[in-house]
Amino acid sequence: MSGRRALQSIVQTRHFAADFGRFHVKNLKFVRTPAPRPIPEEIPAFGTVATDHMLEVDFKGSAWQTPVIRPVEDVRLHPLAKVLHYCPTIFEGLKAFRGVDNEIRMFRTEANMARMVTSARRAALPDFCPLQLEHMIEDLVRKEQEWIPRGKGTSLYIRPFLMGTDPSLGVTRSTEAKLLVVCCPVGPYYASGWEPIKVYANPANIRAAPGGVGAFKMGCNYAPTIATGDEAAAHDCAQSLWLWGEKQWITEAGTSNLFLFWKNTNDELELITPPLSGGLILPGVTRDSILALVKEWGEFKVTERYPTMSEVKEAAAEGRILEFFGAGTAAVVAPCSQIVYVEKPNQEPVKIDIPEQANPLYRRLHETITGIQYGKIDRPEWIRVVN
Amino acid sequence: MSGRRALQSIVQTRHFAADFGRFHVKNLKFVRTPAPRPIPEEIPAFGTVATDHMLEVDFKGSAWQTPVIRPVEDVRLHPLAKVLHYCPTIFEGLKAFRGVDNEIRMFRTEANMARMVTSARRAALPDFCPLQLEHMIEDLVRKEQEWIPRGKGTSLYIRPFLMGTDPSLGVTRSTEAKLLVVCCPVGPYYASGWEPIKVYANPANIRAAPGGVGAFKMGCNYAPTIATGDEAAAHDCAQSLWLWGEKQWITEAGTSNLFLFWKNTNDELELITPPLSGGLILPGVTRDSILALVKEWGEFKVTERYPTMSEVKEAAAEGRILEFFGAGTAAVVAPCSQIVYVEKPNQEPVKIDIPEQANPLYRRLHETITGIQYGKIDRPEWIRVVN
Repeated sequence: MSGRRALQSIVQTRHFAADFGRFHVKNLKFVRTPAPRPIPEEIPAFGTVATDHMLEVDFKGSAWQTPVIRPVEDVRLHPLAKVLHYCPTIFEGLKAFRGVDNEIRMFRTEANMARMVTSARRAALPDFCPLQLEHMIEDLVRKEQEWIPRGKGTSLYIRPFLMGTDPSLGVTRSTEAKLLVVCCPVGPYYASGWEPIKVYANPANIRAAPGGVGAFKMGCNYAPTIATGDEAAAHDCAQSLWLWGEKQWITEAGTSNLFLFWKNTNDELELITPPLSGGLILPGVTRDSILALVKEWGEFKVTERYPTMSEVKEAAAEGRILEFFGAGTAAVVAPCSQIVYVEKPNQEPVKIDIPEQANPLYRRLHETITGIQYGKIDRPEWIRVVN
Repeated sequence: MSGRRALQSIVQTRHFAADFGRFHVKNLKFVRTPAPRPIPEEIPAFGTVATDHMLEVDFKGSAWQTPVIRPVEDVRLHPLAKVLHYCPTIFEGLKAFRGVDNEIRMFRTEANMARMVTSARRAALPDFCPLQLEHMIEDLVRKEQEWIPRGKGTSLYIRPFLMGTDPSLGVTRSTEAKLLVVCCPVGPYYASGWEPIKVYANPANIRAAPGGVGAFKMGCNYAPTIATGDEAAAHDCAQSLWLWGEKQWITEAGTSNLFLFWKNTNDELELITPPLSGGLILPGVTRDSILALVKEWGEFKVTERYPTMSEVKEAAAEGRILEFFGAGTAAVVAPCSQIVYVEKPNQEPVKIDIPEQANPLYRRLHETITGIQYGKIDRPEWIRVVN
């Protein structure tokens, strides 16, 4: 997905003003909380404290209802509500940043909105206008701006989600739905400097398969990874490294896209990341941003294909692996120090060490992307300032 | 899974009296609805009308809380509740029948309870005692017995489900959870006689894959099937026929297990159903019951393996297919009249007709299983009478 272009193509094929009922920022109502909560002085653990207000838009009787920004309170769902049984729910994760100039910036929101529309379609949830949702989220961020922390690497994490709510046990398209956007102040991912992680690669566990929904940000992709995450933790690993197929293609790590930076067998410096075709990986916004940057830099070869476990093992033995890192909204980049690889079932895993470089690419990428996000580097096409 | 035995093995390996806190029928409280609703005279559409009461057991602070049967009302969930984002939710579907003697019978409940425990573990939800849940469900059925319809093929559909509710966006094990059991009066699946269905086989869509969670009754398996169900409907088919892999193994149909009754290439009469090993199919209670019955009858060969699409196509052309039917709690058996098969992408699907036999096996199975469920056939090891 190339952000704005994907969005344009979605918007241009639809007459959303007519189709989307009241789903328009001009209809947005505001109900202020009568009991504002104190903003915590210490930034809470990720995603555990919501701000005072949330955006809510209900879909009923084939139409979107009046959108409203209102106090955060419990969602009320009938016990037969579809989402509780069959999981038609999708989400996005994006951030608002308080810049070095105190301006509030949002990063490539339109790419998240475009992806959310494709997720909604795959989950048989109602279509909505991504541009109007973007405007409404900006309004929410504006109202919650006091909650955006002021420290290095901090931000306001924004979680839009959309779920099917009709009270019916049929495995059918949702006729009622609820779209919510909640916000949580979050701290830096690596609070005390870079801490490269270990990842656990067991080919007996999968995240996605061709013909499935791994390319969509549907909630149903995550539940199966909780127990396998515990398996990774039991091997002292922070994340699962997801493999696919007989050749053990490396696809993702935990909830991140993946990059391998190496000297290939032709002695070329090369950055590899799995391709979007094939339906095995999520089309990450950070992934797309990294690809855009490194192509502009033009300093090394950039290839979209699946690295295989045997390639990585061989390259590690030959000292050709330079870096191996995840990429996602939470951490921007997450360097990996070791792959704990279950090469043969029921045997001790093989440990593949990834060296630490002097001036690693991942840090340069992190500095560039966060520089754009916090207003130190100018890249207007990726930023919207929320005034 | 062999019902009672699977349950025994789970129960015997645990000291549940100590482990499960207040999760015991002796602690069950009852709050009667102050406003009983009229029982509908016409049986409503499947799973759209709940009875007056539901069972609720909360898990908090590492312990199950007091179970309660209380009026059905909206579930209140924090907007950050895990189930709304990452889908840790599991369910079961079972029925209570009003017998020809007016007694209320439940069919192999212990098999559903045992399966629910395995689902909970895979979904990283808290363990519970299956036997105590069975007792609590019996108590709920006893209290809601006036809601059990009296017509042929009618029943009370019982939907236990368990979901992770802690308000936290981390993709981690649920530390809070809610178990609910709701009941809905349901009518006969085939109200006006047998209506064989068409099924849509497109190898581009999958339900499950090895290494995934297709063998568990987790809600996350269902969301992806809603849009593909619409694709099936666009081809005039009632269900998807799920294939897997290069050989196009036939695994399930819609939300049912599958049986192929044919003359094999050795001219033997044979009933085939996919195996539980491999993780591609749900271990259905109806599937298990059918296997038990036909093995007792001993009239034809019974094989657990995957039929392939090419086998089925060839056998249909040679007139060797006798029957092809789904098996599940909803319909018991669901005969199929045609497979609409996308043999080649982007080409018109091939239509494989399944003939209708004079005295089909599926009807004999239906009569036997419903006979047991409604008290016409005695099989005490599969029945508990709820007094």
